[in-house]
Amino acid sequence: MDAPRYHTALIVGTGPGLSASLARLFARNGMNVALAARDTTKLAELCADTRASAHACDARDPLAVAGLFQEVQARHGAPDLVIYNASARVRGPVGDLDPEAVRTSIEVSAFGAFLVAQQAARLMLPKGRGAIALTGATAGVKGFAGSAGFAMGKFALRGLAQTLARELGPKGIHVAHFVIDGAIRSAAQTGAEERPDATLDPDAIAESYWQVLHQHRSAWSWEVELRPWVETF
Amino acid sequence: MDAPRYHTALIVGTGPGLSASLARLFARNGMNVALAARDTTKLAELCADTRASAHACDARDPLAVAGLFQEVQARHGAPDLVIYNASARVRGPVGDLDPEAVRTSIEVSAFGAFLVAQQAARLMLPKGRGAIALTGATAGVKGFAGSAGFAMGKFALRGLAQTLARELGPKGIHVAHFVIDGAIRSAAQTGAEERPDATLDPDAIAESYWQVLHQHRSAWSWEVELRPWVETF
Amino acid sequence: MDAPRYHTALIVGTGPGLSASLARLFARNGMNVALAARDTTKLAELCADTRASAHACDARDPLAVAGLFQEVQARHGAPDLVIYNASARVRGPVGDLDPEAVRTSIEVSAFGAFLVAQQAARLMLPKGRGAIALTGATAGVKGFAGSAGFAMGKFALRGLAQTLARELGPKGIHVAHFVIDGAIRSAAQTGAEERPDATLDPDAIAESYWQVLHQHRSAWSWEVELRPWVETF
Amino acid sequence: MDAPRYHTALIVGTGPGLSASLARLFARNGMNVALAARDTTKLAELCADTRASAHACDARDPLAVAGLFQEVQARHGAPDLVIYNASARVRGPVGDLDPEAVRTSIEVSAFGAFLVAQQAARLMLPKGRGAIALTGATAGVKGFAGSAGFAMGKFALRGLAQTLARELGPKGIHVAHFVIDGAIRSAAQTGAEERPDATLDPDAIAESYWQVLHQHRSAWSWEVELRPWVETF
Repeated sequence: MDAPRYHTALIVGTGPGLSASLARLFARNGMNVALAARDTTKLAELCADTRASAHACDARDPLAVAGLFQEVQARHGAPDLVIYNASARVRGPVGDLDPEAVRTSIEVSAFGAFLVAQQAARLMLPKGRGAIALTGATAGVKGFAGSAGFAMGKFALRGLAQTLARELGPKGIHVAHFVIDGAIRSAAQTGAEERPDATLDPDAIAESYWQVLHQHRSAWSWEVELRPWVETF
Repeated sequence: MDAPRYHTALIVGTGPGLSASLARLFARNGMNVALAARDTTKLAELCADTRASAHACDARDPLAVAGLFQEVQARHGAPDLVIYNASARVRGPVGDLDPEAVRTSIEVSAFGAFLVAQQAARLMLPKGRGAIALTGATAGVKGFAGSAGFAMGKFALRGLAQTLARELGPKGIHVAHFVIDGAIRSAAQTGAEERPDATLDPDAIAESYWQVLHQHRSAWSWEVELRPWVETF
Repeated sequence: MDAPRYHTALIVGTGPGLSASLARLFARNGMNVALAARDTTKLAELCADTRASAHACDARDPLAVAGLFQEVQARHGAPDLVIYNASARVRGPVGDLDPEAVRTSIEVSAFGAFLVAQQAARLMLPKGRGAIALTGATAGVKGFAGSAGFAMGKFALRGLAQTLARELGPKGIHVAHFVIDGAIRSAAQTGAEERPDATLDPDAIAESYWQVLHQHRSAWSWEVELRPWVETF
Repeated sequence: MDAPRYHTALIVGTGPGLSASLARLFARNGMNVALAARDTTKLAELCADTRASAHACDARDPLAVAGLFQEVQARHGAPDLVIYNASARVRGPVGDLDPEAVRTSIEVSAFGAFLVAQQAARLMLPKGRGAIALTGATAGVKGFAGSAGFAMGKFALRGLAQTLARELGPKGIHVAHFVIDGAIRSAAQTGAEERPDATLDPDAIAESYWQVLHQHRSAWSWEVELRPWVETF
């Protein structure tokens, strides 16, 4: 029973937190890592730690995303593990929301994921292997009052993920959608919580991504919810 | 036990089929009707039949949607029943989809619904009454292979609807999402089907909209699926 | 576009509240009504008002349910509208629940519904028409802490309903599951609520049952949630 | 970031396939293993391989299940990892199903799981740790035509799982429900499939159970679907 092996990871939407934990995990396991963000100025330390390349990219722009994949390919070869973490939250009563902020939220949370998945699929389909992971949120399965903009983006992302799982799975590409239900712990919080482990440890999330993406293809998951043990749901 | 009464309906995304059935039903019940579409040239007969006003509007454009509501208000008073029927389907393998067509699909199916619902909410909230109905599709609850673009838009629409139901319901505004599962019958098909009633009769759909939107507020539905008796699901 | 017409209703699990509202609605519309309950002693007034027959029946007992249908058929002809309202709630921490109370809860909420639906299907299938309505609860779509016993019964009921909708729908029998999300108003509460319409008016629920069960077969719903406008969900 | 460690596993509903894979995995990791089944005669080889104890038990019987836990405790100490794999499938048109077979199906699939989970919870709650895994099926999330009996049992099991996850999670007990979507490969099939990995490898399933049950408590999953890469869903 062989688990898949990946060589090159591309993480789009990189900041501190989950993306950093994923990058470190991938690097520790000997993978090449490419990190993409709109603003790469804060990625220097992470790149140094993980020997990763940094790529500035607005994920909402089809040409920029195509260029990103060309850069990554030229540098590391075709990525066989692509993760989309970008999202833009907008909150407030529906009457007060700025339409352009809502449009941006949908584009960053979902349209950018489509662009990235499209490029990834084009590279992976000829080889019949690879994985695409999309980072979702509770707002993608439950629309809360005051979250019209964010819910549209995260519901759309989930629709994309389910579509791609059905379309690309039988072609050998593992598509997985992760529903992160709760706050991700920041470095500042560690050890400072009143209730221990009440926020998601980004290393623990990264570990579950790793395990799901290494499932044997006879028993794949397409969606996994992760929440702290004390989280109400 | 009083059912709500509505005076002025605005239907956005009007063509033949469901919107025409709704317009005729509303007119028969003595309501004022306003019809909005990108292209209003084909609405002449329907407007004549239902004494409706026609309004050209690109639902993706915030200013155009704001202008639409001003026109409708000036003509009929504030609409207290607003229906969003517009959608743009795009299909194909993910690698082949045109990114701009996908962007348009999301904007027409979901972002336009947000813009319309926002204007509607602003008018309805001060009065503490009104209804907003959003027309969804199976693609909003199940992502099929080959429907990445359409599923994103319809999932997003469902997220919007659920959010608005939670946010506006307790303020007296009934938000309802209809999942149309199957093909809507066109005039040409009537009587010509091999299996009778294998496609949705638009008058039957309109009847369910009417009933749901007239539910007593102690027992509201926020989502209703409608499918032909012989449809596989 | 013809709506179905029903002649004889059987309501299993009859008490005050929803079943009484349904019985009165059916009688007002000229239908024959048969009422079944474990204990029929409290049904005298309702039977008088609706010219209904009363039938004592333990819905968990296959022979008793078969006998019930024979009695009803002999009295009124075959019922073409069958409603299952019985349920038994058991609550408490999982460690404290009495296993026999849990078994009873499952049997009353779900196994009895199966027995009733089985008899109904046998009568309706040869005619290719009829309707079966099952009364569910939020506990059938969401398992709350402390409701292990009740959730098992109501989830099972929903599984039954979905199965029957797929199996019997294409044979002309409309199966519908109603998710009642909130408390049903009792006569004592009417007018006494702090927030008006914060509990479900049983007449309003009955009205939605009537409308759904009279949907044209080209546009059927198999599941409808009903909740008060101010209910959190 | 510490993962939990388990010492003693109890697997209820043991046959070849998944339970055997789990038992071998647990034994390889140094855990004590207890195997329960109605008929233990076929467990000799597995017990020898895994140094497991075998326990005859009808999981539908509250006294038998209480006795099982006493036996296991006396032999190995309190089990801190309890897995329920038993189920009884019954299929056929609703009119043809034998009511007693349906009752048995519900009791084996769901009521027995409740009895086992109740005993497990009583042992685990005072310690504030432990895990309970319930093996579900697609029939627990989708009611197919012809599966009224099986769907009731598996829906009920899912309701139980969700309830227990909400109730016991914040008390330190990880409850997980696995939706097995597809056929589990038997030894005879290995290597003989036309499409490789089109059935679930029981070792691959067991591996996912292991990983989920060892998630850090800041990022738990309560439900995981597993299906072959080529399975339609």
